[in-house]
Amino acid sequence: MLKKKRLFTPGPTPLLPEAQVAMSAASLHHRTAEFRQLYTRTLADLREFIGTANDVLLLASSGTGAMEAAVTNLTSPGDKVVVLSAGKFGERWRDLAKTFGCAVATVSAEYGETFAEGTVEAALSEEVRAVFVQATESSTGARHDVRAIGEAVRRRAGAAMLVVDAITGLGTTRLAVDEWGVDVIIGGSQKALMVPPGLAYMAVSERAWRRMEETSSPRYYFDLRKERKAAAKGESAFTPATSLVAALAAALDYLREAGEGSLAVGRDRLVDNAEGCAAMTRAAAAALELKLFAPRSPAAALTAILPPAGVESGKIVAGLREQFGAVVANGQGEMKGKLFRIAHIGYYDYLDTLGVIGALEQVLASLPNGVELGAGLRAAQRAYAQGVPESVAAR
Amino acid sequence: MLKKKRLFTPGPTPLLPEAQVAMSAASLHHRTAEFRQLYTRTLADLREFIGTANDVLLLASSGTGAMEAAVTNLTSPGDKVVVLSAGKFGERWRDLAKTFGCAVATVSAEYGETFAEGTVEAALSEEVRAVFVQATESSTGARHDVRAIGEAVRRRAGAAMLVVDAITGLGTTRLAVDEWGVDVIIGGSQKALMVPPGLAYMAVSERAWRRMEETSSPRYYFDLRKERKAAAKGESAFTPATSLVAALAAALDYLREAGEGSLAVGRDRLVDNAEGCAAMTRAAAAALELKLFAPRSPAAALTAILPPAGVESGKIVAGLREQFGAVVANGQGEMKGKLFRIAHIGYYDYLDTLGVIGALEQVLASLPNGVELGAGLRAAQRAYAQGVPESVAAR
Repeated sequence: MLKKKRLFTPGPTPLLPEAQVAMSAASLHHRTAEFRQLYTRTLADLREFIGTANDVLLLASSGTGAMEAAVTNLTSPGDKVVVLSAGKFGERWRDLAKTFGCAVATVSAEYGETFAEGTVEAALSEEVRAVFVQATESSTGARHDVRAIGEAVRRRAGAAMLVVDAITGLGTTRLAVDEWGVDVIIGGSQKALMVPPGLAYMAVSERAWRRMEETSSPRYYFDLRKERKAAAKGESAFTPATSLVAALAAALDYLREAGEGSLAVGRDRLVDNAEGCAAMTRAAAAALELKLFAPRSPAAALTAILPPAGVESGKIVAGLREQFGAVVANGQGEMKGKLFRIAHIGYYDYLDTLGVIGALEQVLASLPNGVELGAGLRAAQRAYAQGVPESVAAR
Repeated sequence: MLKKKRLFTPGPTPLLPEAQVAMSAASLHHRTAEFRQLYTRTLADLREFIGTANDVLLLASSGTGAMEAAVTNLTSPGDKVVVLSAGKFGERWRDLAKTFGCAVATVSAEYGETFAEGTVEAALSEEVRAVFVQATESSTGARHDVRAIGEAVRRRAGAAMLVVDAITGLGTTRLAVDEWGVDVIIGGSQKALMVPPGLAYMAVSERAWRRMEETSSPRYYFDLRKERKAAAKGESAFTPATSLVAALAAALDYLREAGEGSLAVGRDRLVDNAEGCAAMTRAAAAALELKLFAPRSPAAALTAILPPAGVESGKIVAGLREQFGAVVANGQGEMKGKLFRIAHIGYYDYLDTLGVIGALEQVLASLPNGVELGAGLRAAQRAYAQGVPESVAAR
């Protein structure tokens, strides 16, 4: 049979065709009225997508660039900061903060877990200048409780900036950014927004802007105050990735249509969609007697699944790719070979989800222990028929 | 008449249709064999395009990101560095080096000029750790003599790294990178390589890699040693701008075809092409009695032209855009209103060049002093008929 190549990776994710066309057609100079209009509209749409009243900025970089920007703009060398780490991206916060001279205290949870009650609070104090965390940890498939973390920060570390890497969280989990006291939230183009990598975006609170007046870490390309000034005029400080901005604008238009005129509604439906895909996938895994890597706090962004005992996860990743063209992700770093990850971020639907589950069954059936074909599919269908659980949808 | 929108700006420049299609079609995950193959080939092709034996890296950022990378990877706070500045981009080197704590000595030339004989040499000494310069200064249209600068650096500042921003220089001027002792050369996707902005590329000498072992400026997203390690495996340290990489690969294929199988020949022909467009444009300006802003050392990348006396250059920029869809660039910063810039970087041909000259005549004819329609066109045609002067082509 044909093998259509399909990405089930937690970024890059499947591209929205309308965005591909817009990207290809865009021929824009960034210092023109035409581009200023596009850029201003895109920033306003991103604000609605994020669900914030704060300033929104776009950067020509991958998400890590925006993470660096958060560290260098909000801290000075020697600042005491707390990193909440439960996977590869938590460790990236730690490495970044150390690189720029922060005194880092790390609250760790095991890979696949989220932070045990009280551990975050115990690490906080009025001396802490910033707290860094993921909304969803893409390397393990776990979701962190940003609301509770925000409450703890406000209670115990009133001076700290709360910085949330929501690169795979935005559009897959509910985030009441302003209400929960998130000072900086970070997203990336190649995730829920269905366009290729190369753009990062972030919302920045008034408190965070004030903090930048006093911080001394050196920054130039990622100087957010320069970006804010430029954005007020509909421009970026340095040459923007114009084609990706055009793609992003088209994707945001699509989400507004999906929300019948409201981008916020379109975004919520996208979150529900991810929850639905995740619920189907988790039900299938259970029926196939596969264990989840993050069973206690699973993100809707992606499902990390353990292979059957004695099977290296790379065999499943390779089987799906070679036999069916379906690209899922292996574990990262020391998790390589131990799990595989199926993403639900962005442009996935029922057919995609059922398809990858069925393909997974075929691959498992060819392994020593075998599997009953159709068991996972049936479970996924039943999960769909039941609808997304209220409690999940409202999270 | 119809107004086809055409960019005559020194970046972004007109897109190669083959690259637009490749960009739109690419659906790649960056940790797959398919992408590794594309990435490895693109880096090898870029090496041939640059004309270097050094390692080549790609960054997901605009060119300024690579400029920052050169500063933070090659210097430590307190290092004595020399910036050669004759325009807005020279000033960017100065600002970057100061931001990261360098002790900056600046050799300045007036806007529109290049460095007077002896002035570069006089600023150099064995204490200088790095020298930063542009190959062509896009804000003024002047070309700097990188060969002579390289000789001076080797003679007087043997320990200094020579860093050349060739963002508009690569593909528009001959650069014998390794022979001239250039340690780091920087390019951008949206210039001679005919794809949208969002990628920077750079070649890094062995000397520069050794320097990085001892420098202490903090860097993370732009940590070149991390990129080199990843590139050796066909990957990038952080998520690459996959669609732009696919576009770049298509553009490099086009240049290889233009060079009948040799990318180096294709690149040289592209330089000759820019020289030809520039010669036509300069001849037209002379015939229209318009003065060049950088008459003594004009770059082929772009031609900066002074408006007729008493005319604000914005009137010409607006006229070309509104009447003909042709987007040329105004002056930058304090040069705004005082000059306009027509680019010859990348994907321009005879028809484009003649077209913009004719449109310029129409706009000038509508101004108080008027102009003889066709005078510039005829001069451009004569310049074309004469061929590109040997001395220019060999530069």
